[in-house]
Amino acid sequence: MTEIWRGPMAESLHLGHALICGPGGEIIEAWGDPQVQVYPRSSCKMLQALPLIESGAADAAGLGPEHLALACASHNGAAIHTARVADWIEGLGLAEPDFRCGSHMPKDEDAAHALIRAHAAPCQLHNNCSGKHAGFLTLNRHIGGGPDYELFDHPVQQACLRAFEEVTGQDSPGHGIDGCSAPNFLTTLHGMGRAMAWFANAREGADTRQSAAARLRDAMIAHPDLVAGEGRACTELMRACNEPVALKTGAEAFFVAIIPGRGLGIALKIADGADRAAECTIAALLVRLGVLDANHPSARKFMNKVMTNWRGIETGMIKPAAGLPG
Amino acid sequence: MTEIWRGPMAESLHLGHALICGPGGEIIEAWGDPQVQVYPRSSCKMLQALPLIESGAADAAGLGPEHLALACASHNGAAIHTARVADWIEGLGLAEPDFRCGSHMPKDEDAAHALIRAHAAPCQLHNNCSGKHAGFLTLNRHIGGGPDYELFDHPVQQACLRAFEEVTGQDSPGHGIDGCSAPNFLTTLHGMGRAMAWFANAREGADTRQSAAARLRDAMIAHPDLVAGEGRACTELMRACNEPVALKTGAEAFFVAIIPGRGLGIALKIADGADRAAECTIAALLVRLGVLDANHPSARKFMNKVMTNWRGIETGMIKPAAGLPG
Repeated sequence: MTEIWRGPMAESLHLGHALICGPGGEIIEAWGDPQVQVYPRSSCKMLQALPLIESGAADAAGLGPEHLALACASHNGAAIHTARVADWIEGLGLAEPDFRCGSHMPKDEDAAHALIRAHAAPCQLHNNCSGKHAGFLTLNRHIGGGPDYELFDHPVQQACLRAFEEVTGQDSPGHGIDGCSAPNFLTTLHGMGRAMAWFANAREGADTRQSAAARLRDAMIAHPDLVAGEGRACTELMRACNEPVALKTGAEAFFVAIIPGRGLGIALKIADGADRAAECTIAALLVRLGVLDANHPSARKFMNKVMTNWRGIETGMIKPAAGLPG
Repeated sequence: MTEIWRGPMAESLHLGHALICGPGGEIIEAWGDPQVQVYPRSSCKMLQALPLIESGAADAAGLGPEHLALACASHNGAAIHTARVADWIEGLGLAEPDFRCGSHMPKDEDAAHALIRAHAAPCQLHNNCSGKHAGFLTLNRHIGGGPDYELFDHPVQQACLRAFEEVTGQDSPGHGIDGCSAPNFLTTLHGMGRAMAWFANAREGADTRQSAAARLRDAMIAHPDLVAGEGRACTELMRACNEPVALKTGAEAFFVAIIPGRGLGIALKIADGADRAAECTIAALLVRLGVLDANHPSARKFMNKVMTNWRGIETGMIKPAAGLPG
């Protein structure tokens, strides 16, 4: 899918699978194997957030578009993310120890440096999945579940699994444990593409599930800075597109796009798990569909990224492989 | 070469090329394509350091094994590295601005946090290649070259190219610019394996070049902490081996091994450039040859690495693919 050039030669090469699905979930175009089994990782957060709205929990807690964008986010742990998530769970009468996502240093440089300078450890609010977990906590409080909301057998995760299987259109054959301790459900790449096309075509008011999907999709589109953060591919490419697009990355080089104006969904997985190739490929597919200008600085940054060294000298380029459009 | 497992399924997969060469440079065992063109990146630093010794520059400057290990290093920028490199170039009457490698944050956490807390920028001493560049500066001073020692046409780099071609046993068809601004010469994987086997068999006193090679190899083996740093694969695996082995990683997932007791050399390149797979594969090949115990904690760390999430829960494993030995 993606080549890493240095001087006269491609130094490294990334293989993978990608597809574009139409309004009925049909495959419009595919590269690699559409039936490959995948962990969508954080690319399925909008599926995991459906029960939060469908159950009435989101409205009961007064959640707005910013909360819903954070529920679908893999955020940088910047102040704009952690402050909102902290307020959210405080409003539920809960606190940081109620999370089950674990702690890691924030990607946001200002936030990370502030912690280092204070000789302070990060907390669970900094976890890139803390918005998803705030959504789990909101649903859990609404249904009166036990504190182990992250376990596969817990009603919160079982509700997520039902929504996941129904929207991907197929049974999930198993699950792994994600970095944030929640289950991550297996499906096929086609299943994820079908789900993204369904999100693209969801209409508020059509039915409970479509209304929930449309609210999540539109919240992501309205708040690209909350879905990831400054400098990140999701945030920059959503801002760069010519028309509304919801983008979401997942660990190990997953990427999805929801394009409501075309009724299209995209899902892709780089076989070796390299984010640089997933970011290049999603940009190339958006350019191919005409929703992103190849000359936009953000498109160039991810799709035809000129690599420079520590003295700013150009050393090579990241670019789509021949055969994958750009 | 390497599989990344999560739950019941391999989530990501790394392909690549590897070979083991015998005393005459012959291929003893190979996976993938031995003739693939590669940039060895930092894995060829011991080749680039040959002219430093052969020219008489190292002895004129009074360099010892610690300096020679640093000349072959991609170090963490810890105090043990930067202090020695600073002393070295001060002894030459030179200073930090004479480097042409550029600056980047050190990998060493203590050093990086100290800079962040001091609101200070890293300098060129922190560059992981500063030892190699100190070697270039030492050679350059000895031969009276101009300050642009990093340029392809400069006598320093031309001396490196001659040594590189003679020891790999083939002409280099071109070069790229490395992260540290020095040229990095193309060769085949077999060329690098042949060079590593030659280093394994080099005898001090046999001739000028073999003496230089033996000194560099033995300096690396004597100072695993200077070649990389705490926590790094080169350092940990060199310490873990049952017998003396020199190991060296290179960017974009290159790895080489020099095994003097067997007269063997190893070279490998993961096609997608993922370090986790290069580290797993070099450990697997060392285990296969019997120079590393598969149950040593450092072998397990890199070869059959149990992956845990932010709460310490086991989520998967990095392991050699079937067919690649382990």
